[in-house]
Amino acid sequence: MINNPISEIISVGTEILLGDTINTNAAFLGKELAALGIFVCYTSVVGDNNVRLENAMKIAMSRADIIITTGGLGPTFDDLTKETISKLLNLEMKTDSHSLNRIKDFFAKINRELTENNLKQALIPEGAIALDNDFGTAPGVIINTTNNKIIIMLPGPPREMIPMFNNKARPFLLSKYSNNNKKVFSKTINIFGIGESKVENMFADLMKTSTNPTISPYAKLGELELRITALAYNEKEAHTIINPTIKQITDKLQRNVYGIDADSMQKEVVKILTAKELKLSTAESCTGGYLSKRITDIEGASKIYSGGVVAYSNEVKMQLLNVKEDTLDKYGAVSEQVAMEMAEGVAKKLNTDIGISTTGIAGTTTDLTQKDTGLVYIGYYDRKNNLNYALELHLARGYKDDRESIRYIASSNALFEIIKNNLS
Amino acid sequence: MINNPISEIISVGTEILLGDTINTNAAFLGKELAALGIFVCYTSVVGDNNVRLENAMKIAMSRADIIITTGGLGPTFDDLTKETISKLLNLEMKTDSHSLNRIKDFFAKINRELTENNLKQALIPEGAIALDNDFGTAPGVIINTTNNKIIIMLPGPPREMIPMFNNKARPFLLSKYSNNNKKVFSKTINIFGIGESKVENMFADLMKTSTNPTISPYAKLGELELRITALAYNEKEAHTIINPTIKQITDKLQRNVYGIDADSMQKEVVKILTAKELKLSTAESCTGGYLSKRITDIEGASKIYSGGVVAYSNEVKMQLLNVKEDTLDKYGAVSEQVAMEMAEGVAKKLNTDIGISTTGIAGTTTDLTQKDTGLVYIGYYDRKNNLNYALELHLARGYKDDRESIRYIASSNALFEIIKNNLS
Repeated sequence: MINNPISEIISVGTEILLGDTINTNAAFLGKELAALGIFVCYTSVVGDNNVRLENAMKIAMSRADIIITTGGLGPTFDDLTKETISKLLNLEMKTDSHSLNRIKDFFAKINRELTENNLKQALIPEGAIALDNDFGTAPGVIINTTNNKIIIMLPGPPREMIPMFNNKARPFLLSKYSNNNKKVFSKTINIFGIGESKVENMFADLMKTSTNPTISPYAKLGELELRITALAYNEKEAHTIINPTIKQITDKLQRNVYGIDADSMQKEVVKILTAKELKLSTAESCTGGYLSKRITDIEGASKIYSGGVVAYSNEVKMQLLNVKEDTLDKYGAVSEQVAMEMAEGVAKKLNTDIGISTTGIAGTTTDLTQKDTGLVYIGYYDRKNNLNYALELHLARGYKDDRESIRYIASSNALFEIIKNNLS
Repeated sequence: MINNPISEIISVGTEILLGDTINTNAAFLGKELAALGIFVCYTSVVGDNNVRLENAMKIAMSRADIIITTGGLGPTFDDLTKETISKLLNLEMKTDSHSLNRIKDFFAKINRELTENNLKQALIPEGAIALDNDFGTAPGVIINTTNNKIIIMLPGPPREMIPMFNNKARPFLLSKYSNNNKKVFSKTINIFGIGESKVENMFADLMKTSTNPTISPYAKLGELELRITALAYNEKEAHTIINPTIKQITDKLQRNVYGIDADSMQKEVVKILTAKELKLSTAESCTGGYLSKRITDIEGASKIYSGGVVAYSNEVKMQLLNVKEDTLDKYGAVSEQVAMEMAEGVAKKLNTDIGISTTGIAGTTTDLTQKDTGLVYIGYYDRKNNLNYALELHLARGYKDDRESIRYIASSNALFEIIKNNLS
């Protein structure tokens, strides 16, 4: 038995090469295999072409212990996976009577004529295990080769592949590899308001020298995730390995950490305000609904979120948010003062504990020289604590798609402000 | 010069192998390369590991003329693509002064400290072409090898990779492979409110038999695009080939076509209402800001969009939108009547020509059995034409990600309603 086996995924289908189908199967399998402690070293895609598939299989067999293919098991002439692999391994194809009966039953049930090419699906390489397909007609196949490689062939459509992997292939792999093996566990530190390269400089030594756990940074728009990954026999051991590193990093980053294994800032906002039984409302100018959209992405947001006003024009700012005409005249719509009045205005109008606002210049895609593009104020109002202030942000990067990222990062800053002020 | 060159895509990144990132880059490149007449025979994914990347590059160089890599160009220690490929080709890495200046300018502009690892990004293999990155700091690279292979290294984030491919790599490939050749031209018909298989059935013969132009359907969430692609020597000839097919299809689909080469429905809304000098406001319950977010995505939206109310609670519906308590009691918040009152209420309150509203049950990710999940009403109010009505939609598909898609498709329906009512 091989410890820490290495696997390779081969996705078969010209439609994937042409980009008509996005290879979500490989992502699904990569995640599932990692969770089993089976590391995926390569993923390949080949078209419906027996020569290229054979070539890819030869390469895979030279470098992996487990090879999982998806696609090419169907009834049509360009479904070649089983045939090509059988030929490569010098295995004869034989009709599997159990699979044949299932296919016959299926066609009887849907009252359709069983055509010759459908019978082809019941052919299985000799000595192989057939995997029932509960969501289609093509069975999967497991081959244990003479040189101790495992080849698992799964269908291409995700709605057939996923349950077949979960119900048939995973138990097989577990029984084969799980005794006495370490598995992969990970936790993620969610970070906001500090750049990737700065964080990496802070923890350069730790990142380079630590092997269990390993630390990997993933930059997202305006955010950073540090994933701490351990190899361990069980979850308890994994925590013992991971937790000191998490403490070391969070102690140093302090308030820039907004969560551990957090799905998103908006989810943290809903979680934190729900726990504190606080109500929130939003007043948006430059983000134009992006902030409220993100909050209401979260199931259960209605417990903490009453609603908001998108105040794109000055008239709406005055009429619905009670921003003073005077303030608008004196400081302009994009100002600390207006942001503060918007936050207070919406909280009072909608009778919520917290009001949060955005006003700024999201910028244009045509005029990159526009002065003040990316200047954004986030206004915060907290009734109970009698708190009212505004943050000034400069979010332009000079990119052509700045409008989207400025609006996104502005809404992220608003969410972060709510988290920061309400973390116990 | 090679005719009909064969290409291979290598995506670099452990996060792709682990399934944390779905490889949309390969799908994008596969589609674009096919349109250039460059066939992709293999796609591979390798982790951030120089030995495995070198192995994959060797295999690719043995079977492809053009190799395109994505990922691994960033500033961190696990970004290894340039270094590994340079070493494999025995090329020295040299600082590209133009790229260095761009990186320095960028950090000066955002007022962040330039760290050592950022300078690494300006290193380019000797003799290679640097590709400016207009959406990030890492430049791309083109190498023309001594044995006439082309290696193009692009960044991993799609927002950097896609424009770099479109603006830099594609013209390079065209100039390399297209002289005296026909070029690819295409136009897209934007369709809403009719399913892919229905459209495919309507035009099955045309799609199968037409070779120049070709017709390819691309299904997007709730929308369908038909891309009509012609091979022609110039744009004028392309139009002569494409336009009759466009006419034939749009004549048959009529009001389901919302644009030709339209960027998005929200952009069409802004364009149409700007031309008609009409003002719009929104009142959102279930979409929670998604609709206003999409409208304000568009530069110049302020010309037609005054603002809106996110009325998540009944109190806000009554207080800010003048929905009658009676109506809420009698019909419930998710009803035709409330949708109509919301649309009228917001238009009157914000003094706009058109008011549009959403109210519905976006659903939960935990309870898929919830009755009425996906039931959504879109309310429409047009002051000048004295129009006030609501549409009933059933948007649930029974999938776990229904909440996002229900909210998105609800906002799409609202946008489509505005387009339909205001197309001349």
